[in-house]
Amino acid sequence: MERLEIPMMNDFHIHLRDGEMMEMVVPCVRQGGVQTCTVMPNLVPPITTTEMAVEYRDKLERLDDKTLFLMTLYLNEKLTRGEIEKASRHGVVGVKMYPQGVTTNSSAGVVSDQILDTFDEVFSAMQDYGLILMLHGEVGSCFATNTCIMNAEEKFLPTFKSLAKKYPRLKIVLEHVTTKAAVDAVKEVRSGGNLNVGATITAHHLLLTVDDIVYVHKYCKPVAKYPLDVMALRDAALNNPAFFLGSDSAPHPVDKKLEGGCAGIFTSKYLAQYLAYTFSDIMNVPTSDLQRVMTEFTHSRGLSIYGEQVEKNYQLQFGLQSIPEPSKLVLIKGDCQVSSFVKTVGESIKVVPFMANQNLGWTIESS
Amino acid sequence: MERLEIPMMNDFHIHLRDGEMMEMVVPCVRQGGVQTCTVMPNLVPPITTTEMAVEYRDKLERLDDKTLFLMTLYLNEKLTRGEIEKASRHGVVGVKMYPQGVTTNSSAGVVSDQILDTFDEVFSAMQDYGLILMLHGEVGSCFATNTCIMNAEEKFLPTFKSLAKKYPRLKIVLEHVTTKAAVDAVKEVRSGGNLNVGATITAHHLLLTVDDIVYVHKYCKPVAKYPLDVMALRDAALNNPAFFLGSDSAPHPVDKKLEGGCAGIFTSKYLAQYLAYTFSDIMNVPTSDLQRVMTEFTHSRGLSIYGEQVEKNYQLQFGLQSIPEPSKLVLIKGDCQVSSFVKTVGESIKVVPFMANQNLGWTIESS
Repeated sequence: MERLEIPMMNDFHIHLRDGEMMEMVVPCVRQGGVQTCTVMPNLVPPITTTEMAVEYRDKLERLDDKTLFLMTLYLNEKLTRGEIEKASRHGVVGVKMYPQGVTTNSSAGVVSDQILDTFDEVFSAMQDYGLILMLHGEVGSCFATNTCIMNAEEKFLPTFKSLAKKYPRLKIVLEHVTTKAAVDAVKEVRSGGNLNVGATITAHHLLLTVDDIVYVHKYCKPVAKYPLDVMALRDAALNNPAFFLGSDSAPHPVDKKLEGGCAGIFTSKYLAQYLAYTFSDIMNVPTSDLQRVMTEFTHSRGLSIYGEQVEKNYQLQFGLQSIPEPSKLVLIKGDCQVSSFVKTVGESIKVVPFMANQNLGWTIESS
Repeated sequence: MERLEIPMMNDFHIHLRDGEMMEMVVPCVRQGGVQTCTVMPNLVPPITTTEMAVEYRDKLERLDDKTLFLMTLYLNEKLTRGEIEKASRHGVVGVKMYPQGVTTNSSAGVVSDQILDTFDEVFSAMQDYGLILMLHGEVGSCFATNTCIMNAEEKFLPTFKSLAKKYPRLKIVLEHVTTKAAVDAVKEVRSGGNLNVGATITAHHLLLTVDDIVYVHKYCKPVAKYPLDVMALRDAALNNPAFFLGSDSAPHPVDKKLEGGCAGIFTSKYLAQYLAYTFSDIMNVPTSDLQRVMTEFTHSRGLSIYGEQVEKNYQLQFGLQSIPEPSKLVLIKGDCQVSSFVKTVGESIKVVPFMANQNLGWTIESS
């Protein structure tokens, strides 16, 4: 029997929503094998202050007191050095930059070519306090400049490089990369000596291409790109210490998805299984390497950027002096049929998980 | 009052289906301002013989005896010189090549890189009898070769060029072009002196980009591409005699569309209005030029390739010695709200038309 024992995973990019949807999806995080997660701030209204972030964290902890929730702020023009300092004191790990209008609840986002000028005070303060800047690396579509969902990420990369150059001590994570161009940009910055930059890769972007985006339940932003891009993501996930797991798990009610144009794929509930399936059955990583590969991608690599923040949060939230030994996650070869829906008891909310009704061939024995 | 008087249109690429769907959509052809149309053969089973084509035409004529239906065969390995000769005698205008599996009902299609070798007898005969070869110019997606819906058309272009080179007397229409690369390929072949090649452009590809394909009712194959490609299509539609209207209007029941992955956009019912809206309101063609532009794109240009076949069909079907003076189509500025659905009386079939519920601003006064 094939058996895979790894530390419980760190998912450094997740959407947990609020209200009833939050109550439904929070338990899915541990079910999918995750112990620590970075919580995105794009609620309505967005989480723009430390106070809001702490209040949101309290709600999450009431739903699951074992998982470490790392909170973030939504980049906005009201942020000050003082607020960054306060955020740091309260364990907020970073600030998320959304370009205006490119994804779910990003209407309060920023215009990407103004980032550098507008947020100098914020970025300088973040650099000083060790907060992480998380970038949704896309520019908005524009007919006149030939910008669309297929080149939106590539067109953002000069901004990413400029940020890394201007703030070399700032920890920057380029989130959910989807292109070889983005992978290359991260490698380029690091090869220049700046090891404070990294990137997350989702589980679904290791599997999908642009051909899939016409199926509403496989549509997310940034959209999946060419096969060549997927190959670059797989290679980075396998081999490059700068790339680590951020699932971007983003639940939407099924009726909203079916209306069309609603970006986001829900992966939390089966996250470890998707990844075992992908590395083992799709990428053909030999069994002897699988444990190392999964551990690196889903656990250890991200800590090179997040380590300090994770440690601080274990102190703040659990009163521990250092990061504790992670719990074990055991995956075995076996039937794991993804359910058709994840739903609330009264079915007031129904979400279609990624690869609904398919058998992933890996199941969680214990965690 | 803005008023536009043009000849009724020629739509050299349309899907009329069969059964109840056919009965519903055939009347829409004239409603949308079309007098002559090229009927695609991708039924289940496909129209592969002259006999089937003639039988299909009889059905269409029973539903509308004023419209000229130009029939086509589905390219397949059973076609012979004898069948092509027979097809020609019965007014079949051409043969449609579908690559295997790339669009609706194309499972019986051909593998594109085998076209030249496999169909020499057929293409030689078509050349001799003046039949038109219509190309769905895409290759199938393939992960290993980095082929996906975004480059499937561009990767077919070498085959198109080879065909035009090997059969210089063969009339070839590259159907529903979506890329600057395809526009350039058609121009290139023609600039080499081969004026037997042309291309159709749909109404919807003058409006959509890849950003739209995640909405099921805006998904068709080939998919809409970059803004730059749309600009190349608009320029070709305006200025180049090789490019003419082929709507590729392709109705699907709404429930099938909502399942996802069902390619096709239904434009027949409002075809003239979409085009007037696009040329006038989106491309800002001055009122003084609109009549000439619409007439060229929707009527006269296509006859440079189709003229002989149209004339023959007027003889065969209507007993006329030459192409009659076309009926007039009058469009005026005014409210034209696209309906939410086009449906059968009992609502057993419901189709969502392109731009449902939007106001096109142009309406048909008479035709």
